[in-house]
Amino acid sequence: MPRNEYHIGIDIGGTSTKLGIISTDGMIQKKSAFDSNIFDEPKEYLYKLSKDMERLIGNDISLSEIIGIGIGAPTANYHTGRIEGPVNLNWQEPLDIKSYLEMIWGIEVFVTNDANLAALGEQYYGLGKKYHNLIVVTLGTGVGAGIIANGQLVHGVDDLAGEIGHMTLIPEGRVCTCGKKGCLEAYVSIRGLMQSYQEIKGTATELQPIEIFQAAEKGDQHAYEAIKVTGSYLGHALANVGTALAPECIVLAGGLSNMGDTLLAHVRTAMEQNILNNLKGKIKLSLSSIVGNDLSLLGASRLVATNLFETKKMINQQE
Amino acid sequence: MPRNEYHIGIDIGGTSTKLGIISTDGMIQKKSAFDSNIFDEPKEYLYKLSKDMERLIGNDISLSEIIGIGIGAPTANYHTGRIEGPVNLNWQEPLDIKSYLEMIWGIEVFVTNDANLAALGEQYYGLGKKYHNLIVVTLGTGVGAGIIANGQLVHGVDDLAGEIGHMTLIPEGRVCTCGKKGCLEAYVSIRGLMQSYQEIKGTATELQPIEIFQAAEKGDQHAYEAIKVTGSYLGHALANVGTALAPECIVLAGGLSNMGDTLLAHVRTAMEQNILNNLKGKIKLSLSSIVGNDLSLLGASRLVATNLFETKKMINQQE
Repeated sequence: MPRNEYHIGIDIGGTSTKLGIISTDGMIQKKSAFDSNIFDEPKEYLYKLSKDMERLIGNDISLSEIIGIGIGAPTANYHTGRIEGPVNLNWQEPLDIKSYLEMIWGIEVFVTNDANLAALGEQYYGLGKKYHNLIVVTLGTGVGAGIIANGQLVHGVDDLAGEIGHMTLIPEGRVCTCGKKGCLEAYVSIRGLMQSYQEIKGTATELQPIEIFQAAEKGDQHAYEAIKVTGSYLGHALANVGTALAPECIVLAGGLSNMGDTLLAHVRTAMEQNILNNLKGKIKLSLSSIVGNDLSLLGASRLVATNLFETKKMINQQE
Repeated sequence: MPRNEYHIGIDIGGTSTKLGIISTDGMIQKKSAFDSNIFDEPKEYLYKLSKDMERLIGNDISLSEIIGIGIGAPTANYHTGRIEGPVNLNWQEPLDIKSYLEMIWGIEVFVTNDANLAALGEQYYGLGKKYHNLIVVTLGTGVGAGIIANGQLVHGVDDLAGEIGHMTLIPEGRVCTCGKKGCLEAYVSIRGLMQSYQEIKGTATELQPIEIFQAAEKGDQHAYEAIKVTGSYLGHALANVGTALAPECIVLAGGLSNMGDTLLAHVRTAMEQNILNNLKGKIKLSLSSIVGNDLSLLGASRLVATNLFETKKMINQQE
């Protein structure tokens, strides 16, 4: 009987850490989650993580069947295996999560930033299957992207490729959380949409994105306008990214994208208006077909698979 | 005695077509050039091209020693082997140059856009040797780029990856030759620099870029300002491209870049000011180390080499 093989996927988000056990053919076997930001020290967090991994594995899966662990987090660096600025985790110092887990578990660990997991998940299990050049944009607290070029994930310097949220969209525009002015993320993000709604309405309101979408559906013209400008900003930014990279497909994933087709229509219009003439109508734009957190867990599994495959190829070439 | 092997490189520019015979170790053996735009019909142009290839090969190189032909031109499409919009060549219809030359010469032909040749030349023979992620920006009549990601040239849809000249830099800004507003190319190009000089001086002048640089050196403050804003625009655009792709290195090549260090200093300042915080100081910015047209001829040679190598690898895998 052939041995079963599994990956563990870990997605360390701003509010929660999601874990999953994924078979190598992409079936999520089990999953769990815990609050990311209730730990004051790295060792507490890592202890909790290992405990939950143990519980998730349970008695029906043997440790020898787990061939790799894939992890995604904001500021995680593929090259160093560390989370460089784990601000979500209540401390500032880099977290050397790869070394720690490899030492504890004796299993190979691969780490990358969260948007890259989404790109890998979409490439293998979502809309990206047909494409060699694919960009997956994650919309939420911030805006990130994972870039697949020639079928391979692009990591770049310090694994920072895809940080499109900090491309300047409006010179001398809104001040971004990063300190620069006019970043895409200052316009297209939870905060950006909320600010646009306030500006358009002309009064201070604290309506959350989901409420703004609901208000628009009920006929609130200000809410509709806020969604429209947010979509247009994103579309213009994607026109720039599309012009630079000419991908076959751009996929939107993450919180804001769940708000669906209303936003997408405005994104598409602005993208088509502003893209390189010869690319008009040539780049497919879609919402992710994979629901919720499963995208990043599947991506974590593919991060393991592609890297173990590369290692195997190198060994074969040396022999 | 081992057989010599050569590539033919062809660079079809706006004013002239450059040819070269390059040994597979990157030595340009011979080169020649002729006016691109004095032919009214494709067959006249192609006849002249073949005649010049014949003359260049001469009696000391045998046809069997030529293992491939690499061609670069604006709007050339790697996937189709055609020059899709050969506006430099006095007609509009696509030129199926790959099929034609393969039929006449019986040698495999590879085609791509001109900026991609610069990227391949720089990757193998210039500053790119050390880098897996490299962007080569060509500055001249227009602005283009060749993108190397994970060590491989990115072609994208219709071979259009790298058309950064038509990313929007200034929303609702100058009208570009492409019809859109605020494109990088409307600010950073021969025409863009000339327009900035006119705007700053406040009078109509037809000073060419080289004259503007000379005027600046002689103390013309308007000329200095024009160069400074041009460099700043480019630096801001490269900050955006750098933020999206996090390459290890960006190289400037082509006409305007020959004007050298004056421009480069302003580009660097604006790039560092506007790039993702975590990338500040991390991306090397340089002028191309390869002089004049040799860069594209060397790139054409590498286009042949990498593609023949890929073909060989695929055949080996099938066996």
